[in-house]
Amino acid sequence: MKQDYYLALLHYPVYNRRREVAVTSVANMDIHDIARIAMTYGIRRFYIITPVEAQQVLVRKILDHWRMGFGAQFNPLRKEAFETVNLAKSLEEGLEEMAALSGRMPKIVITGAALSGALVSCAVLKERMNQEKDPYLFLFGTGWGLTDEVIARGDYRLAPIQGAADYNHLAVRSAVAIVMDRLLGQG
Amino acid sequence: MKQDYYLALLHYPVYNRRREVAVTSVANMDIHDIARIAMTYGIRRFYIITPVEAQQVLVRKILDHWRMGFGAQFNPLRKEAFETVNLAKSLEEGLEEMAALSGRMPKIVITGAALSGALVSCAVLKERMNQEKDPYLFLFGTGWGLTDEVIARGDYRLAPIQGAADYNHLAVRSAVAIVMDRLLGQG
Repeated sequence: MKQDYYLALLHYPVYNRRREVAVTSVANMDIHDIARIAMTYGIRRFYIITPVEAQQVLVRKILDHWRMGFGAQFNPLRKEAFETVNLAKSLEEGLEEMAALSGRMPKIVITGAALSGALVSCAVLKERMNQEKDPYLFLFGTGWGLTDEVIARGDYRLAPIQGAADYNHLAVRSAVAIVMDRLLGQG
Repeated sequence: MKQDYYLALLHYPVYNRRREVAVTSVANMDIHDIARIAMTYGIRRFYIITPVEAQQVLVRKILDHWRMGFGAQFNPLRKEAFETVNLAKSLEEGLEEMAALSGRMPKIVITGAALSGALVSCAVLKERMNQEKDPYLFLFGTGWGLTDEVIARGDYRLAPIQGAADYNHLAVRSAVAIVMDRLLGQG
């Protein structure tokens, strides 16, 4: 049986710069870049999660353009990548769909640049993934990161990306690329 | 002596979709994302290379905003990342500046999703980099990739990124993130 991996980008609940619980806007570039990353690393579905109806309408418009509209003819490779993109109103809704698809709840892997406490490295998690053969959800936050409440739901918390310097303020798009390559790439 | 690593994003000469030699526009998101990647992985300078004067003016405006304008107060971490960004008219001009800074020409590492022939893996190159202690330039193309003429100038050609699937059409921003992490990350 092929293993099921899912990606999700959460726009609520996340922290804003004052550490208040907030909702962020969906960034067009996140959809494009992460859809292509998902496609490259064999992710079954990439979920964009937002409770805001106007944002869902906007995302659907973008998806339709690239899946069925002018974009699909203009760039068939983008069309292919966009097939992996799904929309959910909440983490719950997304998880239910994944569970229905995979036959059981995926294990949740929490990511974040400021995570501390009991962390797992990509190398260790990769090994675990290959042993357990479970479905997995790799969960990424926007804004100033996932809330403590969401973090507490994770089965694993991934150690923050460590470059060569102290600076670790990557775009979430870049973090997704790096984490997927560490866990699923043939490096 | 600390080793000097450089990144450059070439907007000319590159191929367009009909494999004609072309010039591409600078994408704002490339500047932001790659500056932050450069900062994270300890890159000395990130060069944006374009011969088009109007594009240089635009890039300078963006850089000034984030280094000295409103952006610098709004987001000091972005300001810091933008300090690594430099502008050059041509690959030659960029290389001359790097050679002046480092005391010798950097070795050129060519990247591309369609490279074939004599390739080096990230793992092998990483070892080489640690042995040789030379300055290195990691060169990324835009559009449909670096031209054969530019590719021929490389000291190394990096094997294309291999995910879990056959699809390898990542945004250049994502490719930069993955390659930097493979070569310079503490994965």
